[in-house]
Amino acid sequence: MLVREIAAYLGVTFEGDGERQIAGIAPLDTAGAMHVSFVGSRRAVRDAQASAAGCLLVTPDFQSGGRTVIRCVDPRGACAKLIRLLQPPPAPAKGVHHTAVLGRNCSIGEDASIGAYCVLGDDVTVGAGTILYPHVTIYSGVTIGARGVIHSGAVIGADGFGFVFTEGHYEKFPQVGRVLIGDDVEIGAHSAVDRAALGVTSIGDGAKLDNMVHIGHNCRVGKHVVIAAQTGMAGGTVIEDYAVIGGQVGMGDNVTVKSGAVVGSGAGILSSKVVRGGGEVHWGTPARPLKEYLESLANVARLPQLRREVEELARRLEALEKSKGE
Amino acid sequence: MLVREIAAYLGVTFEGDGERQIAGIAPLDTAGAMHVSFVGSRRAVRDAQASAAGCLLVTPDFQSGGRTVIRCVDPRGACAKLIRLLQPPPAPAKGVHHTAVLGRNCSIGEDASIGAYCVLGDDVTVGAGTILYPHVTIYSGVTIGARGVIHSGAVIGADGFGFVFTEGHYEKFPQVGRVLIGDDVEIGAHSAVDRAALGVTSIGDGAKLDNMVHIGHNCRVGKHVVIAAQTGMAGGTVIEDYAVIGGQVGMGDNVTVKSGAVVGSGAGILSSKVVRGGGEVHWGTPARPLKEYLESLANVARLPQLRREVEELARRLEALEKSKGE
Amino acid sequence: MLVREIAAYLGVTFEGDGERQIAGIAPLDTAGAMHVSFVGSRRAVRDAQASAAGCLLVTPDFQSGGRTVIRCVDPRGACAKLIRLLQPPPAPAKGVHHTAVLGRNCSIGEDASIGAYCVLGDDVTVGAGTILYPHVTIYSGVTIGARGVIHSGAVIGADGFGFVFTEGHYEKFPQVGRVLIGDDVEIGAHSAVDRAALGVTSIGDGAKLDNMVHIGHNCRVGKHVVIAAQTGMAGGTVIEDYAVIGGQVGMGDNVTVKSGAVVGSGAGILSSKVVRGGGEVHWGTPARPLKEYLESLANVARLPQLRREVEELARRLEALEKSKGE
Repeated sequence: MLVREIAAYLGVTFEGDGERQIAGIAPLDTAGAMHVSFVGSRRAVRDAQASAAGCLLVTPDFQSGGRTVIRCVDPRGACAKLIRLLQPPPAPAKGVHHTAVLGRNCSIGEDASIGAYCVLGDDVTVGAGTILYPHVTIYSGVTIGARGVIHSGAVIGADGFGFVFTEGHYEKFPQVGRVLIGDDVEIGAHSAVDRAALGVTSIGDGAKLDNMVHIGHNCRVGKHVVIAAQTGMAGGTVIEDYAVIGGQVGMGDNVTVKSGAVVGSGAGILSSKVVRGGGEVHWGTPARPLKEYLESLANVARLPQLRREVEELARRLEALEKSKGE
Repeated sequence: MLVREIAAYLGVTFEGDGERQIAGIAPLDTAGAMHVSFVGSRRAVRDAQASAAGCLLVTPDFQSGGRTVIRCVDPRGACAKLIRLLQPPPAPAKGVHHTAVLGRNCSIGEDASIGAYCVLGDDVTVGAGTILYPHVTIYSGVTIGARGVIHSGAVIGADGFGFVFTEGHYEKFPQVGRVLIGDDVEIGAHSAVDRAALGVTSIGDGAKLDNMVHIGHNCRVGKHVVIAAQTGMAGGTVIEDYAVIGGQVGMGDNVTVKSGAVVGSGAGILSSKVVRGGGEVHWGTPARPLKEYLESLANVARLPQLRREVEELARRLEALEKSKGE
Repeated sequence: MLVREIAAYLGVTFEGDGERQIAGIAPLDTAGAMHVSFVGSRRAVRDAQASAAGCLLVTPDFQSGGRTVIRCVDPRGACAKLIRLLQPPPAPAKGVHHTAVLGRNCSIGEDASIGAYCVLGDDVTVGAGTILYPHVTIYSGVTIGARGVIHSGAVIGADGFGFVFTEGHYEKFPQVGRVLIGDDVEIGAHSAVDRAALGVTSIGDGAKLDNMVHIGHNCRVGKHVVIAAQTGMAGGTVIEDYAVIGGQVGMGDNVTVKSGAVVGSGAGILSSKVVRGGGEVHWGTPARPLKEYLESLANVARLPQLRREVEELARRLEALEKSKGE
């Protein structure tokens, strides 16, 4: 494909050698003359100087320095589009792999892919076009929407963690609820979405969960929510639409994260807390607005200085007291 | 089942319409006239106002406002009992699924359930009535007691993490110990209990582990210990009986958590630390008694105020010094 | 085997009863007269007093008190050597288990062991002597070196977590890169190494990863790096050779941990940070040199004292002001 053809495919303009032949896409550091690469961050602008890429996907304000570039508003998005055209990832085989074990009354949508050694319990529904990679386990009574992607090792619908302490031991609170997963949801390797005790644990349309995410019973994760790896939430937590949750975040029971909130990686949110939304960023344990968190860090960092000031005041005060006593 | 029959089954009293027909159990927010629901917390008392549930399981002091209620000391426990009667969770099929792979000399107790694609190594013992959900992996030489529940993806008996650094690289310290799991233990999805280097890694009777819990080699988890999701403990740690460990807690090597201690979610406990028991609650990193942790948080939060006080003192001191100089 | 034979095998000296018969190796607390045990730490020196072990592997300066001991520079390493001789762990069967599912163009090295229900995608290479325990999933295009050990539940090569937000929803950034794992690498149960978006995610020769470690796309983990359980790193992070990373550490995107750095358990490292190497120890969130971290903790702990000092100054200052006003 020629540079000018790529630009035309993306519906944008190019500068430089439009007749240059492009064989594929590569990262800046390993790209050669036959590759196109993208410059998607300030950091990448620096790396782009040293890159041997034959063509760069860049933002309108990128200083090309005479290189062959294709200009677009979102170089990363354009690159994603190009990868899907030029070197699309291999699609898993459609249909149910012969080693998969399905329970009674399972419904598998058209063009869905159920990989090797997947195990589905009774009454499981998988929507059209959804991909279950090998070794996904779906317990009974779970519904998964269309066009989803669930990676290997994920377990959907295992029992929530509920016990009643009685006479010196824990009795299980039976977990008889369900799990409902919307359309276009991606769930990473080893993630677990527990079934509700009663009622439903749900993941909204378009939500994206990274690896090793733990969703406790009766949680409700909204639409287009993003949750990075190793984050966990206990029972009954609600994450509203478009919230963005970092990695290794921990949430207690019955937390509410409002729509559009951003929770930084490693944050800890206490049970029953409400985290404000609308793009506000929260950080730390206990989680608080980023500005407060940074101020707190700064205040602690300035403690040695504060201590010196207090010592200085003590010295001056003592001098005054002495002079008065004389 | 009628309300009065439910009350009789639970051995407690009801108020209101004893002839009301109950078809099932539902959470407060989705329950209808045919459902019984339970009010198990202060939060739930509020939610109960808006609930359309035909009958409520409530504590003796709940103000019914004329609704049909069943009164008992532990509504949540009563509800668990009722679920087991009215809508018991489907029991996995007894016996060894034909796709399970068992090593030599395995002993599977009566009525145990070994799910699809479980893999058991040599010399594995599984007690009577224990359920292994699909995709559980048990390495060689592991003993699991009776009436346990192990969820999909759990791995019991993988090598502990032990290496000897020698001549510029790490040599494995052979992990030749065992794992011993007591009776009535529940282990969540993706949890891992590593085998001992030498000796035994053990989980006591009645212990409950949530999802993605990591138990390092040679740890000893006591009886009726509860460990929430994503908590991990390095080698040689001892958790005594009836301790309660929150989620995402991290423990170094050779920690001791005394009997009955409560460790809050997200806490970090340094190697070789001893955490006091007897119901004391510990929090933070490094973990400390909750009172100290809260005081520390409050002290940091009051830093801006302290700084202002110091500035005020400095101003007043300067004024005094000036007046003295005059 | 006799004590003198063991000493000879290890190429070191013994004291005491060289003719004593040793049947096996055991930990200090359960060893009997027929067992050898090792004293590998100060803590163990104390435990050794109470041990009934017939022979102890000890350092040159250990005070034997008349017991039979074998002296060597590295008792733990010597014990590892002895375990491999006297009670070597059972080796998994060589070859590909008949239940394993292999894609096209897979290359399995000599004496490699591919366990039950392993699933390998297309174009996967596994080096000579490498062990894949049951239930390991390797996606397409992954290369694993020789003499490695990968524990059950590990997933290598699942998609990295990359999305482009466009028109109110997230579009997947296709993950078309590869994973390259060196020789002599051990990967724990449930760990996940994601494929690169473009390019390569790599794990260097001799690296050791504990359970539930998450390696994001395009990370580069160096040679002989050690990573303890439940640690996660987002995309593009570089861990240089011989770094040691504790458990439950979290790293943002594009972090660089320099060669030989030590990162304490539970640390959090912000995106794009560079952590100094050369044996320096880093701790806390945000991660900083251990000395700074400890000072910060101490400063916070001394806050009540500082507050009292300020109050005392205020009282004295007020007294001065009063006396001046009189």
